[in-house]
Order: sequence, then structure tokens, then C-alpha cells
Amino acid sequence: MSGLRVTILGAGAMGSALTIPLTDRGNEVRLWATEYDRNVLNMLREGKVHPRINVTIPSEVALYEPEELEDALKGADVVVVAVSSEGLLNVLNRISGLVECKQRILAVTKGFVKVNGRILTVAQAVKSLLGEEVGFVYISGPSIAKELASRSYTNVIFNCEDREVALELKKAFETEYYRIGISTDVIGAELCAALKNVYAIAIGVVDGLAEAKGGITMENAKATLFSKSIGEMAEIVKNWGGEAETAYGLSGIGDLLVTIRGGRNGMLGRLIGRGLPVEGALNEMARKGFGVVEGYVTAKVGYEIIIRDRGLKPSRVPVLYNTYRLLHEGLKLEEFLKEVL
Amino acid sequence: MSGLRVTILGAGAMGSALTIPLTDRGNEVRLWATEYDRNVLNMLREGKVHPRINVTIPSEVALYEPEELEDALKGADVVVVAVSSEGLLNVLNRISGLVECKQRILAVTKGFVKVNGRILTVAQAVKSLLGEEVGFVYISGPSIAKELASRSYTNVIFNCEDREVALELKKAFETEYYRIGISTDVIGAELCAALKNVYAIAIGVVDGLAEAKGGITMENAKATLFSKSIGEMAEIVKNWGGEAETAYGLSGIGDLLVTIRGGRNGMLGRLIGRGLPVEGALNEMARKGFGVVEGYVTAKVGYEIIIRDRGLKPSRVPVLYNTYRLLHEGLKLEEFLKEVL
Repeated sequence: MSGLRVTILGAGAMGSALTIPLTDRGNEVRLWATEYDRNVLNMLREGKVHPRINVTIPSEVALYEPEELEDALKGADVVVVAVSSEGLLNVLNRISGLVECKQRILAVTKGFVKVNGRILTVAQAVKSLLGEEVGFVYISGPSIAKELASRSYTNVIFNCEDREVALELKKAFETEYYRIGISTDVIGAELCAALKNVYAIAIGVVDGLAEAKGGITMENAKATLFSKSIGEMAEIVKNWGGEAETAYGLSGIGDLLVTIRGGRNGMLGRLIGRGLPVEGALNEMARKGFGVVEGYVTAKVGYEIIIRDRGLKPSRVPVLYNTYRLLHEGLKLEEFLKEVL
Repeated sequence: MSGLRVTILGAGAMGSALTIPLTDRGNEVRLWATEYDRNVLNMLREGKVHPRINVTIPSEVALYEPEELEDALKGADVVVVAVSSEGLLNVLNRISGLVECKQRILAVTKGFVKVNGRILTVAQAVKSLLGEEVGFVYISGPSIAKELASRSYTNVIFNCEDREVALELKKAFETEYYRIGISTDVIGAELCAALKNVYAIAIGVVDGLAEAKGGITMENAKATLFSKSIGEMAEIVKNWGGEAETAYGLSGIGDLLVTIRGGRNGMLGRLIGRGLPVEGALNEMARKGFGVVEGYVTAKVGYEIIIRDRGLKPSRVPVLYNTYRLLHEGLKLEEFLKEVL
């Protein structure tokens, strides 16, 4: 096994964590840093641990400066897109002339992006900017980057409309601890990955309520909301032509479970559940240095493209609909609970 | 609304908790104590809080001694079976001559029971001992008794082959905080309720492993195992003629979520994950005063009736199969992890 040449775009938590299994399998790995990764890049050059995943990057990984994108991509068999959804468009535009159709694109970026006024998923954005013929694989499933980087068991799904392409990359990247399943339901995986952040806010609200009351837990309500959220994901995925099973597997249940263990979406929900008005909760988050809360943005976009434009009835997706109303239309907390439980 | 006359058999956590929503809805509620509930009964008579759910029982609830079973049942519209699975056979035998066919049976007991050498579900045992024509409703879903007793939002499913009977009881018992859905998939709900304890042990093993390693969490692995467990429940339910949706809803996802939040099944798993041999872990549990660990017993019974007797392939239910092997056939921890993840 000679290994593939892999260029990872983005030296954030997940991009950097992927260097571990990929080098363990003998691939030739390059890590390209965006403008936002300059500090991290300097630390990595000095052999320090990556501040977000607490490990040093294998010494055989070649590091590239933000200005060295073209060099970083040259001759790569696989390009891993691991930038944030906010940075996605910029990076796709920069690489659009550089990527060749024999290069596979493997994306870990989650969420929706606006391209020419239209809301697209990551797969749609990649194909729209790099060409329909590009071999595109989307990674989904429960993967906290820090755990993957420490070689703790992590199971993911490689989603690709062409099963063979997904299998090819699985064969090159799978290790004992990085376990890869295959699915052809790209749209289903993308919808679950984006919407989980909205559902994590809703579940966080219940956490906050329980904290505010003190003493009594609200695990029954949380479990109900979790289970309803998964049911809604399945409903939405089916409505978009995907498979309900995607929501009922690692991409839905699995990913939502790790998402509610921490992170800013749950934190926003908790602040609202404790009684802060939405505006106040967002300010509090900003004050603590947590900028964009993805689920807050996705609640609105999700409402627009799933309910308003596509016509899925609010009664079929009450948690999504009422989390949107809670966050963006002033729905009262008490009403929210009655509607979603 | 005049309310129904309801007799609850068993003054444990769930039987006692149910007195709260049932009296809130204006039903006439009687609570019958088993031999094991004598101490609790005395406390309730003195107006003390119930030691397991931290609330006092509404004063209008009539309390019955273990010897007063016949009086307790007289004229009841609904009999709620809320004894443990170990106590089920005894109670069913005692009431078999006393229950009339117009009386509804509502059961919250989970698990499998042995009747004349055959392993039966609770519904099967009830019908076998009280008659096939009995109106039987099975309650499933995430309900920690203490939360229900404190009127915290709790959503459950009333499962009955006859939808009308389930609806009738829903109408009489539902409150703002005790929310009742309806399903006709009794066998599916029963299988999920019984097997969740096995899956909770498996997930507990991962918790224990993470604790033993110290420092690094294993949320990716836990989420994977959780999601695979739900997939297996769906597989088993379908194999028994039930509906996969049952596993994907409150009876599967919801109940497993609250089960892994605490309890002796998870505790046994954690001890094994930390490195104790199974025998040692069971002794440690016994030493701490935790007797029967339901999932330990159910792993064996589940293996026998689902895999051995019914022929479902181990490869379709690797978590159930390997948890059985871990607990009862000496499978090594390392092997267990490789097989289930």
C-alpha cells in the first residue's frame, strides 16, 4: 500500500485531527492553513501541541502557509475541505481553477452557504463552484476532533453518490480506531449535520430550564425532545429525497448525541432556558468570546428553505418550527415547551 | 368528566408516581402495596414523602395493605400493574380470579418472565394468566418516576393492539405535563423496554473505559454504540413482527437515553469497562446493595430467544450478541470493543 497524496484545507480542529489517521495509514499528508490559522500554524511549526486538539501533528505532515495554496494542491489525489462554513465560499473560489477532475473532494464542513443569492448545501456549493463531475465525498457522524486526534474510537460515514468513490477513500483512510461506513445519501447526511445545531439549541433550552428551577432534573423532557428531533430529521430528509435511515444512524442520532454534550449551540439554548431573552443570550455569548452560533443562523435558513419555500407543514416539524419562532419571532418560552413536547 | 376508578398494584417508584397525574385528572385512585412495600406504605400513611420519588402521595389516594388485594380491586375500571418483573408472576396469579374482562390492564412492568418454562413478554404473560380477551395497555417511553412525580414534562406511549382502548385511557389520564401518545405496536414497545437494559450495560462499558484511561472522553464511541443499539432494536422489533418506528421513537431512543443517565445497568457496565472481571463487578454491585441487574439477566434471555431460538444472525445484532458474550461467555474487553464499534 503506497498511500494517497492528501491535501487538507484548514488547520482547525477537524482538519488537523484528520492528519493523525491519514498518516497512520501511510498517506502523504499536507496541511494548508487559512488566514485564520496563522497562529496555529506557527505553533505547529515549532512542534507545539495544537491548541484545539491537544496533540502535536505528525512530523511527516507538510505544513503550508495561506499564500501557498497552489503548491499545497499540486499533485494531490484527495483534497479535504475542512474550513468553516463561513470560509467555504472563499476557499472554493480560490481553488476552483486549481482542482482537477481526477482529484477527489472530501468535505467535513457542515451547514448551508449562500451562493449567488441561493441557499446551498456544502455538496451543492462544491459542485456549483468546482463542477458537477467532481468526485465528492461528505463525512458525517459523531466525531469530536479531540477524541479522533487522540486515536479514540471514532465511527464516521463517507457519503457519496458514487459508492465506488466512497469505498476507494475508505480503503485508503480507515484505521483500527477511525472506522468508516459508506452511504450514498449525501443530501440526508448534509441536512442532519446542518440541522443538528438547531435541535441542540432546543435541547439546551430544557437544560437551562432545569438549571433555573434547581433540584429537579428534566431528563424525561430532554429524551422526548431528542427523540422528536431525530423523527423530524427523518421527515425532512425524506422530504428532500434522502433516506430516513440516515437520520436513524450515525449521521443523525450519533452526531446529535455528541453535539448536545457541549458547544455553543447548547450553551445558547441553556441561557434562553434560564430566562434570558434571545438578544441578551446572544450578547452574553459574544461577551464570552463565542461568536457565530451556527444553530441560531441555521434555524432561520432551515425555516426558510424547509418550511416556507418547500412547504413542509410546521405540524410535521414542530421542534424546528418552534425553535425558529423562539429564536427569531419572539415566541414565549412556556409556549415553546407546550408546542415541542 | 367523572373520572375512572383506578387500582395501582405496587407502591414502588413508578406505581406511586402515577398517583399524581391520575388524581390531578380527577380519577379515583387506590394504591395497593406488595409485601416488599410495607415500609413505604407505613411512611405514606404517616404523610411522609415517598423515599424513592421525594413527594407525598395525594391525600385522596386510598392505601391498601398487601392482605387487602381483593378489596383494592373491587369495582376498579383500570388495574395498573406496577410491580417488578420478578414479582409479576406472583401478582398475576393472585389477581387472576379477581379481574373481570371489563377491567382494563395497564402495565408499566418491563422485561421478560418465565411462565411454565417458557419465556414471555409482560403482555404475553398477562394474557396467558388473565385471558386473551383482557384489554391490555403497555406504557413505554422515557419516564423517570421522580420527574413525573414532580410534574415535570413526561411523554409516554400507551401501546395497545386495540387503538380505541389506548385512546380511552389516554383521555382519562393525560395532563398538561403527562403527555400520552398512542401506538398499536405492543411487542415492539416491550422488546425495546426489555433490551434497553442490555444496551445500557454496553454503553456503560465505554464510560468505564474512558474513566480508566482518565483525561480523554469517549463520546464518539458512546454515540456510535448508542446509535447502533437503536438500529439493533429496530432490527429485532421487525424480526418479531413489530414496527421499526417504535425503536426510533420514545419507546426506543427516548427510553434508552434516560436509561444511560444512571441506574444499575450502566453501573455494571462501567465497572467492567474499568477492568473488573464480570464476576467481580457483580460482587461489587451486590456489596453496594444493588441486587439484580436486569440487563445482565436480559442479555442471556435475549440471546436465547432472539438469536439462538429465533435465528436472528449475530451479525445483524452485534451489540446484543457481544454484550451477551462479554457478560456470560468470557469475551475479552478489547475484543468486545472491536466487535461492537
